[in-house]
Amino acid sequence: MLPGIGVFGTGDIVRALVPFLRAKGFRVEAVWGRTLEAAENVATELNIPFHTNKVDDVLLRKDVDLVFIICQPDLHAQIAVKALGIGKHVLCDRPAGLCQLEVLKMVHAAQYYPSLISVVSHGLRFLPAFIQMKRRVEAGYVGTVNVCDVRVHCGSMIGSQFDWMCSHLMGGGILTMVGSHIIDIVSFVTGQRAGRVHGLMRTFTKSTDKINGIRWIDSDDFCSFQMILEGGTCVTATLNSHMGGGFVQEVAVCGSKGRLVVRGSALYGQTAGAAREELLHQGADDPSLLANRNSSARVNSLLPQPYLQGLFRLVGALKEAFATGDGEHGWLKGPVASAATFEDGQYVQAVMDALRLSSASRQWEQIVLEKI
Amino acid sequence: MLPGIGVFGTGDIVRALVPFLRAKGFRVEAVWGRTLEAAENVATELNIPFHTNKVDDVLLRKDVDLVFIICQPDLHAQIAVKALGIGKHVLCDRPAGLCQLEVLKMVHAAQYYPSLISVVSHGLRFLPAFIQMKRRVEAGYVGTVNVCDVRVHCGSMIGSQFDWMCSHLMGGGILTMVGSHIIDIVSFVTGQRAGRVHGLMRTFTKSTDKINGIRWIDSDDFCSFQMILEGGTCVTATLNSHMGGGFVQEVAVCGSKGRLVVRGSALYGQTAGAAREELLHQGADDPSLLANRNSSARVNSLLPQPYLQGLFRLVGALKEAFATGDGEHGWLKGPVASAATFEDGQYVQAVMDALRLSSASRQWEQIVLEKI
Repeated sequence: MLPGIGVFGTGDIVRALVPFLRAKGFRVEAVWGRTLEAAENVATELNIPFHTNKVDDVLLRKDVDLVFIICQPDLHAQIAVKALGIGKHVLCDRPAGLCQLEVLKMVHAAQYYPSLISVVSHGLRFLPAFIQMKRRVEAGYVGTVNVCDVRVHCGSMIGSQFDWMCSHLMGGGILTMVGSHIIDIVSFVTGQRAGRVHGLMRTFTKSTDKINGIRWIDSDDFCSFQMILEGGTCVTATLNSHMGGGFVQEVAVCGSKGRLVVRGSALYGQTAGAAREELLHQGADDPSLLANRNSSARVNSLLPQPYLQGLFRLVGALKEAFATGDGEHGWLKGPVASAATFEDGQYVQAVMDALRLSSASRQWEQIVLEKI
Repeated sequence: MLPGIGVFGTGDIVRALVPFLRAKGFRVEAVWGRTLEAAENVATELNIPFHTNKVDDVLLRKDVDLVFIICQPDLHAQIAVKALGIGKHVLCDRPAGLCQLEVLKMVHAAQYYPSLISVVSHGLRFLPAFIQMKRRVEAGYVGTVNVCDVRVHCGSMIGSQFDWMCSHLMGGGILTMVGSHIIDIVSFVTGQRAGRVHGLMRTFTKSTDKINGIRWIDSDDFCSFQMILEGGTCVTATLNSHMGGGFVQEVAVCGSKGRLVVRGSALYGQTAGAAREELLHQGADDPSLLANRNSSARVNSLLPQPYLQGLFRLVGALKEAFATGDGEHGWLKGPVASAATFEDGQYVQAVMDALRLSSASRQWEQIVLEKI
């Protein structure tokens, strides 16, 4: 039987996710909100039997075996560590935490309870386009990987009222929201991690028509970063939330023999000498998601299509892990085994910490993974 | 009467340019090549009455009043300085020289002979899309300019045999060939120059099927750079010649009130609150260039459409300067007045020098314009 789920968070993503979880056969037993009112609203809207604003009230429920932590990032680590300690499986949204040491606590908890699932929601790993990109890179399609060239263009990520997205101390900003996915998918596809990084981050929009009181926006809305991977690959990424219009994401991997590009959720490739680029994977929207997507159009502003599709596919892999799981560590063998672990989350957090430091120090910074 | 022209160089651009110059009414009197054979081949092919491999033989000709310096960059400065000293007008291809001090000599020569035309071939300034972008930025379409986001994707710039393009010491590389144009157009459009810069440059393709002897390619084929302009604008640019296929250039200017993007030679814009992006200038190919373009398809590999169109429009402005010029400094008033001067070329060179230094030092570098 599939586990009962407790959801932490009351945002738009929760509104998109809960119907999808049910469609997959999961029971959503409880929802937690920062305020009782927020929790009640979501519980009513989504018909969730239990709501609360106390973390323990969800974690201690017997009918909850798996928790989805999709609330503000400054609460991720404490909820995840506690959940694992109580024996619950955990899916944690990105960023895993606020700094590397926080995520390291999550890593320790995950190591202490290896039979529990503990994954970070880097869903791009489950998009067919990136899966195929990784396979082709491994099979030598591009030869030696020289360059990863990434850009994400989107509109403002700031909502109509001040919330954690406006505050870099609470984990907001385009680096944590988008860059975390990019840092993860680059290491997933290339099999390399960053050795040193350089970042340039800015907050250009410090107030809006609706947020202009005593609190100012200080989360980054522009980020350009470069990484030198351990194998020598140069990565350059531009994350620009000043581009209005739709969400544009392009991840190119260029090598000595050719190149691969994921645009949106489609994969293109061209080998050296080929006359033109070929479509390798049509990024058609998954039909099973369409109905859901239509019912939650506003979700797309916070969670663009490729990320939403990826998250849904990650949920599908989770379902399979539970449906076929045979005892301890069973989840390490199924499709969910390729999900981002808390260790991966720590690496991503280490890179983000170094990028922030680099933007302030104006220097390249080494990536050091803490172990204590 | 329009001046007679002497051309320095025998490359594909010369083959495209000479027919266009004639169509505009210029007489092409002489061509110089590095070897007598190269000069003779071009002279025969293009029906140019005089050819030589001696610089002075072109400069001293009475029927040559304007020289186009479109040869290898390490010769630009010496030819330009000499030409001005002999009283010839000069159009110099980019990069103006190999380093800032070399270009400074050109600046001094230009200052010493102010009645002579001295321009660098940064033709993007003459593309209608960029002219309109500049006007709209000045008129406040985007508000305060926060971000310039540039990317250029193209295939390899290395030809079938070893030449100056393979050598960074001789001025080759994607930074000098493409980045110089980008650095110039950003300052042209924003009215701001760089205060400090950060560069990451690499040569991934050190040999090819045809270039694999004792000489290796050491000019950069990948460059990611960032600039902080004097007004605080962040510029990030990715120049990637590992992308095969066609030439893709996108220059976005994002501000507090909206954004403008030149894609290829078309201008798009979106103001804050607008539902979608609007086409502000159709980048249709100039019909007068089409015939010429068709006859020199291979030129496009070395000089992509926007640059070729821009260069041709710069030539049109030059023609007007001569056709309407009324005595000294007359050329400072006409359309050619917006061309890049040697001072502009010195600035671009200073930025490129700093980017190379930054890539080696792994630090941000200040832009210092030499004056002695």
